Parts: sequence; structure tokens; C-alpha cells
Amino acid sequence: MHKPLIAAALAALALPVPLAAQTGVDERVAELRDAALDDDYAWAITEAITTELGPRMAGTPAEARARKWAVETLTAMGFSNVRDEPFPLRTWVRGIETGAVMGDHSQPLALTALGNSAATPVDGLEGEIVYFPSLADLQAEPDGALRGRIAFVSHAMTRTQDGSQYGAYGIVRRAGPAIAAQKGASAILIRSIGTDSHRMPHAGSTVFPDGTDPIPAAALAIPDAEQLERLIERGKPVRVRLILTPRVLGTRSSGNVIAEVPGSDPSAGIVVVACHLDSWDLGTGAIDDASGCAIVAAAAKRIMDAGQPRRTIRVLWAGAEEVGIFGGRAYFEAHKGDNHVLAAESDFGADRVWRLDTRFAPANQPLADRLAAALAPLGIATGTQPASGGADVSALIANGVAGIDLQQDGTRYFDLHHTPDDTLDKVDPAQLRQNVAAWTAMLAIVADAPERISATK
Amino acid sequence: MHKPLIAAALAALALPVPLAAQTGVDERVAELRDAALDDDYAWAITEAITTELGPRMAGTPAEARARKWAVETLTAMGFSNVRDEPFPLRTWVRGIETGAVMGDHSQPLALTALGNSAATPVDGLEGEIVYFPSLADLQAEPDGALRGRIAFVSHAMTRTQDGSQYGAYGIVRRAGPAIAAQKGASAILIRSIGTDSHRMPHAGSTVFPDGTDPIPAAALAIPDAEQLERLIERGKPVRVRLILTPRVLGTRSSGNVIAEVPGSDPSAGIVVVACHLDSWDLGTGAIDDASGCAIVAAAAKRIMDAGQPRRTIRVLWAGAEEVGIFGGRAYFEAHKGDNHVLAAESDFGADRVWRLDTRFAPANQPLADRLAAALAPLGIATGTQPASGGADVSALIANGVAGIDLQQDGTRYFDLHHTPDDTLDKVDPAQLRQNVAAWTAMLAIVADAPERISATK
Repeated sequence: MHKPLIAAALAALALPVPLAAQTGVDERVAELRDAALDDDYAWAITEAITTELGPRMAGTPAEARARKWAVETLTAMGFSNVRDEPFPLRTWVRGIETGAVMGDHSQPLALTALGNSAATPVDGLEGEIVYFPSLADLQAEPDGALRGRIAFVSHAMTRTQDGSQYGAYGIVRRAGPAIAAQKGASAILIRSIGTDSHRMPHAGSTVFPDGTDPIPAAALAIPDAEQLERLIERGKPVRVRLILTPRVLGTRSSGNVIAEVPGSDPSAGIVVVACHLDSWDLGTGAIDDASGCAIVAAAAKRIMDAGQPRRTIRVLWAGAEEVGIFGGRAYFEAHKGDNHVLAAESDFGADRVWRLDTRFAPANQPLADRLAAALAPLGIATGTQPASGGADVSALIANGVAGIDLQQDGTRYFDLHHTPDDTLDKVDPAQLRQNVAAWTAMLAIVADAPERISATK
Repeated sequence: MHKPLIAAALAALALPVPLAAQTGVDERVAELRDAALDDDYAWAITEAITTELGPRMAGTPAEARARKWAVETLTAMGFSNVRDEPFPLRTWVRGIETGAVMGDHSQPLALTALGNSAATPVDGLEGEIVYFPSLADLQAEPDGALRGRIAFVSHAMTRTQDGSQYGAYGIVRRAGPAIAAQKGASAILIRSIGTDSHRMPHAGSTVFPDGTDPIPAAALAIPDAEQLERLIERGKPVRVRLILTPRVLGTRSSGNVIAEVPGSDPSAGIVVVACHLDSWDLGTGAIDDASGCAIVAAAAKRIMDAGQPRRTIRVLWAGAEEVGIFGGRAYFEAHKGDNHVLAAESDFGADRVWRLDTRFAPANQPLADRLAAALAPLGIATGTQPASGGADVSALIANGVAGIDLQQDGTRYFDLHHTPDDTLDKVDPAQLRQNVAAWTAMLAIVADAPERISATK
């Protein structure tokens, strides 16, 4: 019910300068950008992916169904060379998952197994909790010190607009379980890597390096982590019983879905715009990352329909990102010989773009200036750091391809990230359209730029 | 992390008039009220109930543990005549609950069984969905028309400050399942009675009258209800599979915990301040209704510690409210002969009191005026409707006892009501203290009022 109000507020925010008063922006770019503020493609794609396909866990039949749908849909939209490029994937899937405090304060705990978690015995695993306020506290334990007990690691992630705390606190999830295993813990619970206060745990992968046997590893919903902390503060031993029955299915298939807008000048190179089609299994992957796939495809469609661009635009809907960026790696291995000149990815929700970052050679400063001028009317300012690219294009950028980040507002992203709550109702259609407008303007400029585009001198 | 900001904002809102500038408020009442703005009792009680006891489903060992804790705690606080008055209770408990869309769009649905729901077969029940936008649409079906199918009833509950939509839309939950059974449906799904957009269904009781065999009945989380609507809009049959294994344990015990501040003048009658100690099983019953029990006990404690009041204050922590107001009825049957002169209940969360409603005889207008004057500095205005009392005191008020409602702000109450999310982190300590201040001021006035208190001429 609140959407019209947000739309009105956004419209007011997005266009502080009358468009007619702008200078330095190519008229065709401005027209494509402004028309995209009425875009319906991105909403239709986001709605269809989340509604008809639902959760799309990498390597499962649900992801395969999504790839089939994607090929059909991108073909129907008029893209060229649409195909699914499959690759093998070791596939882990969730089972039953329950947790409970035992004894005088017995009560259930809301939790979810981390990707690559080991299973408990079918009838459960019980142990005393050893609490660590941070990963550093866990690391300080001697090897073997936690034998027979369950480690519980909390942390202090807070809300930021740029999502920068994900690196600093996400390490608790990625590395904490292996460290706990090395200390002898029988299992580990972590406070979810998130900023909300709902009884919904945040899923996500963890990594057990070769030589470290996996242990059961789960994320507690944030209220449950706080509840466990309060029980521990009472000073008596706290015992928890866990039942987690995930399993590894063995090697299955994932795949990258690719579609193209062929350019008129093959020597001018390829612009790759990426997202990922797979999702975690608890929600329907709306902000992570159906909306990203919708944004890049809608923008490419709008450019395609406006006339053939100079450069080929390649849309990459990657597979198996969530479980370890396997799609991005497979794409890089298969296509590293292609003439990529630019890569960009939308994988941080569907809230408005607020910052432009580029990774260009100094000679491309005029191109960066044209991008900045075209995006400014959408409320987008230029950042001070080089673009880093999304996960699925990071290998390209690390190997010298130029990059653009259209940085989205992530203030509420980690309220929803990897939770059951990542559903369509969290996508604001007006902000989604602002994204499409930003990507359309960007593509209109880079696909037709007369100069060479490069990240290196 | 946001609590200090809310506290500052609330302090600014709560005290628009310098206290020294007030007139017409007894100085002792004002002092008790203002001291209660620093109250710690209510937070300590709310924290302990939600943390140490957790969910407190009526008739279960968890509720029995809570009653034992309540007797010990209220005794330790210095109350008199503390006791648990048990009563028998037919006890229904939740089992496994899963739901899934079948076929081309297969995906799980977040749902929870309604209290008194029948069970499905252990291996599930599958059927085609028949969608009804409102309860009236379901009622319009001929008897038997839904044979072998699953009814799905949605509705349009929206957010209000006074919670007044609960009556209008709660009927979908209370009466919808019995109507669907009469139409021949094999099961019913309803859109949760709530105002949030999270993947957490809202529990609550339904009623199957004598002569209507119970059917499986569950509430979908609101995003899941919207998802099902979108799938239905696509125009093809939608099939859902449900597994619900609730069961009736038979007759168990619940009970009302009672504590008193004995008055100096037994002929002046008893003031009852109530809440309920039982909770739904999905959350820890923080706003429903640990905080209510904390507010009334904290206020009574503050009055007790300030010197013996004229009237007896009786604290009623009722049992088995959620499953049918059984505690309130048992209390009325056991105590209808007692000399009650006033009843009030706190059972609408822990957000600030914004309105005073009274149900007094016309002769008690001066008393109403003194209450209004004492509460005004807390940002509380007088309403235009007579007090209706909370559920557990409604029988007293219906039988002629005077009543006071200290109406709480319910704007976000139905985001949390009966969900897993009803946990301690949703209670704002500053607003909780404003409640204690309002209840303390109210009790200071009514317990010592020299006049007769009555609802009738």
C-alpha cells in the first residue's frame, strides 16, 4: 500500500534538476534514460522469476528449471545467441534443521545450516555452548580446546549504505566453522550475518579447507543469538541440541545463461552485464538476485530496441554464484579469450543507484565524465574508489578488463540477504526503474563510445 | 542500537508541558508517576519471562513452569496472597507443519496451523486451491461446493493505531475454517491476520462449533499469501500439499497467578489489574503479553512500596488467554462474589499509552478528570468511547464493574502479534517505562480515591 508514496518521494528525489536544464549529455542518451524511468520489463522479469520459479538453489532441479525459463524468456525478448552453458557442480542441499536450548530454560532456536555444513546424527547432537564475542576470540583458543562442545560466535555487524561491513563480518560465516573445527568443536553456531531483528536466520556458504573435516555449522536468527547471549550471561552452563541433516548430492549441473545484442563493429569489443540466476533456498531470491538479472536484461533490451549498438552487449545470468562463484569462474575459463572491453554486474538488491565507480585507464576520463553527467539527474554521484565489479565479473576485472559499478543503496540489503524474507514484496518498483534508467544510460554511452575502452594504459 | 534515539524522542514527546507548570494533579501522584519513568522492574520482568521461560503455550509444561516462576517472583517482590489458581484445560499443541505448491511452480509456503486445526494425514493432504478474496465470498458458496478442494481466504487488513481492524479481519481466522468445513473443503488456508510483510505466519485460535468436524486450517505468511494469489492470477489450477500434525493432548492444567497489595479499607473494594502469562508458541510472547504482566506488576509494586493504599490492588496474571480466554472465565467464576470496583488490563504490546478510556458512572466524572489531568503530561489524551477492558477482565466489565483502558499505540502490534517475531528485542524500554508511569499514576489515583467507584448509577 505504501508503494505510491515511495514512488512520489523517489520521483522528487531523483530529478532535482529539470532535465531540460542539463548540459553535456547526449540527447539520445537522455531520452533513453528518461524513458527507462517508465520501464516495465524489469518488474515483469523479477515478478516472473520469483513467482513462477521460486527458490533456485544451485545444482538442483529448481535451478535447471530457471535456466530453461531464462533461455526461453531471453529468446522471446529478441536477444541473439541465447544459450545455457552448463558446468558440473558439487551440490549441497539443506535437510531438516532444528535447534533448542535444553534444561531449565528449554526453548527452540531459529537457525539454518550454512552451505557445506556437515550433518549431525539424525537424532541430534547436544553440547555445552562456549561463547565467543568475536572471531578473534575463537581464534585465540588453543587447538583442541573445544573438544565435545559447541562454539557460538557473535559479532557486531551494523547497517551501512555501501555494504562494506559484509567483508569484515562475513568472515565469521566463511571462516569461523573451519576454525571451530580445528579447535575441536563438535559444532558451531554463529550470529547471522545480517542487520535485521527478525526470527529469520541468514543462510550462506562456509568453507572447510582440505584437511579440515566439516562440522555441523548453523546461523542463528539475530533475536535467537541475542537470546542465547542473555542465557549465557546468567552464568550457568547452557546446553543446546541440534538436528541438521544437509547432504551432498554429488556432482550435478549448473550453468550460465548468456544472451547477446550483437554490435555493428566486432573489433570494438564486448560489454558484459551480469547478475546471477541461482538463489539461496530459503527465500525466492528477489533482491539476490532476480532483480539484478531483471535490471541488466531490461537495460540491454531497451538499447537493442533503440537500434544496433556499436559494441556487442552480452547479458550473463550466472549460475551457482551463491555457493562459491562457480558460474563466474566457468564463464571466465570459457570466455577469457573473448574481446571483453567492459564488465559490470548488478547484485546488491533493487534499491536505488547512488554512486558511480569506474575502473578505467586515464585516457578514458572523458568517458567517465560523460557517464557522470548522464547519471547525475538520477541522483547518482561519482565515487572516489575504483570499481571492483560484482562477484561474477570479478575474474574479468582482475584480469584487466575495465569495470563500472552502479552502486546500489544497501542500507536495508542485509536485513533480507539470504533469508526467507528475500521475496518480491521487498522490491520497490520505482527504485527498480531508477536502476534500469541508470543501466540504460550507462549502456547507451559505453556501447556506442567511439573511443577505445580500457582499464590499462 | 536505536534505543537511545527512541528514548530521547519519546522523552521529548512525552513531556511537552514542564511538570512544574501543571495544575490539578496531586503532588504525590505526580511524584509517583515521574519516578516511574525511571522504572526498571518492568524491563526486568519482561526480560526474565521471555528469556528464562520462552514460549508459554497454555496447558503445556512450559506454561506450568511459567506459573511456578510467577508465584516465586511475585512473592519475592513483596506481594501478598500470591497463589496459582489452577483450572482444567483441553490442550491443543502444534506438530509438524509444511506446505508447498506442486507442479510447474513447485515451491514451499511458510504457514502455521491455527489453534484447534485438525491434522492432515501424516503423509499430507493435496488439493486444488479455491481462492476467495474475502470471507463473504467464501460464505456465498453453496454447502458442499468445495468438496475435495482447499479453500484460500484472503482479506485486506491494514495498519491502524487502535487495532480496530482486528475485529473486522480476525473473523477470517476465527470463523473462516468452520465455514470452509461446512462448504465441504478438505482444508483451509488464510492470509495471516497481520500487517507485516515477513515470511512469518501469524498463529491464533479458530473455532469449530459443535456439529462441525474440524478440518486442517493454517495461516500463510503474508508474502506467501500474495505469492499464492499471483500464481492463481495466472489462470491455471494451483495445487498445494499440506502436512499438519497438531494434536489434542486431552485435559491438562492451566492456571491464574494472583498477587495482592492489601488495602487499608476492605469495604472500599478491589482494583484488578490484569494481563496474561500464557503465550503463543512461535515466539517468546514479549509484547503478547510478558510486557503487560510486567507493566501491571511494576505499577502495583511502586504503589505498594509508597505506602499501603486504601483499596486492595489485585494483580491477575491470567492463564490460557490465547486459546480462548479460559483464565479470565475461570477467574470470573471463582471471584464474581468479590467486591471488585475497577478492572483494567494491559494486553496490547509495550508501545506508549496514547489514550485514556473509562467506563464510570456519571458520578465518577471528577475521578475521570483527575485521571486525565495526571496522564496528560505523558502525552495521553481522553478518548470518546467507554472502556471495554482487556479479554481477561471483560467478564467483570460486562457484569457491571467499572473499567479503565490505558490504550497503547498498536501501529506495529499486528506486525508481530502471534508470530515467531514476538521477542524481547521488539520491546522499547523507554516506551515500556511510559506505560509503567501511566499505570502507576492511574493506580495511585484509583486505589486511594475517597469516593465510591462504580460503572452504574
